Amino acid sequence: MSRTDLPGPDPALVDVTEAARWLDGRVLRTPMLHSPAIDRLVGARVLLKAENLQLGGSYKMRGGLFAVSRLAAAGHAGVVAQSTGNHAVAVALAAQRHDLAATVVLPVDAAPTKIARARAAGARVVLVGTSVDERLAVARRISDETGYPIVDAYDHPDVIAGQGSASLELIEQAERAGTPLDALVLPVGGGGGAAGACLAAAGRPIEVYGVEPVGCDSLGRSLAAGRPTPVTSAPTIADGLRPSCVGELPFAILRTRLRGVIRVDDDEIAEAFRLLLMELKVLAEPSGAAGLAGVLRLAEDGALRSAEDGSLPVLGAGARRQRTAGVVLTGGNVEAELVARLATPVRGREEVAA
Amino acid sequence: MSRTDLPGPDPALVDVTEAARWLDGRVLRTPMLHSPAIDRLVGARVLLKAENLQLGGSYKMRGGLFAVSRLAAAGHAGVVAQSTGNHAVAVALAAQRHDLAATVVLPVDAAPTKIARARAAGARVVLVGTSVDERLAVARRISDETGYPIVDAYDHPDVIAGQGSASLELIEQAERAGTPLDALVLPVGGGGGAAGACLAAAGRPIEVYGVEPVGCDSLGRSLAAGRPTPVTSAPTIADGLRPSCVGELPFAILRTRLRGVIRVDDDEIAEAFRLLLMELKVLAEPSGAAGLAGVLRLAEDGALRSAEDGSLPVLGAGARRQRTAGVVLTGGNVEAELVARLATPVRGREEVAA
Repeated sequence: MSRTDLPGPDPALVDVTEAARWLDGRVLRTPMLHSPAIDRLVGARVLLKAENLQLGGSYKMRGGLFAVSRLAAAGHAGVVAQSTGNHAVAVALAAQRHDLAATVVLPVDAAPTKIARARAAGARVVLVGTSVDERLAVARRISDETGYPIVDAYDHPDVIAGQGSASLELIEQAERAGTPLDALVLPVGGGGGAAGACLAAAGRPIEVYGVEPVGCDSLGRSLAAGRPTPVTSAPTIADGLRPSCVGELPFAILRTRLRGVIRVDDDEIAEAFRLLLMELKVLAEPSGAAGLAGVLRLAEDGALRSAEDGSLPVLGAGARRQRTAGVVLTGGNVEAELVARLATPVRGREEVAA
Repeated sequence: MSRTDLPGPDPALVDVTEAARWLDGRVLRTPMLHSPAIDRLVGARVLLKAENLQLGGSYKMRGGLFAVSRLAAAGHAGVVAQSTGNHAVAVALAAQRHDLAATVVLPVDAAPTKIARARAAGARVVLVGTSVDERLAVARRISDETGYPIVDAYDHPDVIAGQGSASLELIEQAERAGTPLDALVLPVGGGGGAAGACLAAAGRPIEVYGVEPVGCDSLGRSLAAGRPTPVTSAPTIADGLRPSCVGELPFAILRTRLRGVIRVDDDEIAEAFRLLLMELKVLAEPSGAAGLAGVLRLAEDGALRSAEDGSLPVLGAGARRQRTAGVVLTGGNVEAELVARLATPVRGREEVAA
């Protein structure tokens, strides 16, 4: 983790606030959830923004709808998008709402439920390769042919502002509950959600962390290298976190504002998935569960311990109250087969394997 | 189904209102959830009260906490309860909050997660037989020996009022959203939740339905016989709906106020469980999913069709707006193994079986 200076209030918070105001009533105000059992495990208060319950099954609906609506208002008759899945679903649903044509480009190994949801919303679905470069090339060609603009999944200010509105809502819900956030944790694919979270948190003493699966750590490497650095993404159950490179605009925001990157492996993500399902009683997709996996890792590393425990006051300035970590549960679009496999307790799985 | 006259405002609504006011801030105000996919399947708007997210994992926390707190205020040093599981968990947690001793009597085949949750809250857990009569006999003996009062799971006005507060919250949440309920559907074990729902709906044009698993239909038989009538409960995945007889107090309320009883089988409950998990993204226990199974059956029978479809205006007086059905998702305490089994799509299970 690299320490960065927390910036003062940033003009771009205005954009998140504007997106949040526009989206109010157009997407769901998802609940902030909480589980005493998860608090005990983490050793801090954990407040979870249930964007898995959002329209379209993920927080991508926010950025997708905000961006597509502006394009519709500007007179465009269609849109093109590439995505590992949830942004495609969001753009498809947003285009349907505005009666626009939508073409979405997904990897050949996209989660079938995401492909089905995009098709159900009336989008033309094109399946191409497994890398973001392959998808982007096809998306650009379709955009050239049709004249429809690309709604980038991360490198787009409206998308980042829309995604940030989920974090802003959580920040405000936590404040209204009298338990303001000390930390805010988001999974990182292309970095749009984490960048939006940084903008949403600007001017408040909240440390924002990004979580990447081991081997899909483009953001971690990019921060170390000082520029966007692609990786050959390793296999992971978190299919939404596989983009091979963080976006340029997210990177420009994250490089000065992010408190740190947490790397988690599939076992940690699976454990977080089970906790969310069995204790919080909600279904997150593995990418959505990665945020909680990151909080569990932060707690293990001592970063969420409060000062009276004798630890360093990593969060806040030695305040003695209980630490509060916020997590955006970014999505819940997952295959039934994977749910069945992940829900099975580890002991049971070992018995089956033995 | 037997048609009953809707009563006017009832004095007992006052008790539900009082319980709701007292519980405000002491239990969670759970969210009202909604899924376009479920609406499409049902052909009506379905608003689901997510009491599976409630403290203790079920709406039983409401009645348990309300009743136990009054006993604590009256100077009792301990409480005794019998239950298929969730009421025991609720009483254990409530007793823990008031520093009272708690003994809870559960069937030997209770869901292990419910036994574990009651123990984790510090209760003494006694496992006895499989029928409510066996549990009640042991609970009465323990009550006699200790002098601690029994907090009955259904036959207790505070428990009914507390459970009813979940329905009242849903009724008010639906009204605030501009989509007032036409129907309200609750699963029936001992009948306390459904009785509380009837009290909560008093004075409003809301038809309340109870749902029972096939073979556990004590309420249905009791309504036909005109008096509480026990059944030898058949096996069902809805472990919370197995009480062999509806309570006397719930029956006295339900016999004049309930619109009808819907019987559903395990396949219908499993289908509702999957819909809740994969479309609404929440984990309900099978007993909690039974309410949605009942709504799906109501829809199949045409009871939720709107008048412009050419059907009889069963709900409301021929109003042309879309019908709205409310469902209380009563609980979410379920074994991981059962989740894995139920999450697997039916096609997949058939392939495995073939």
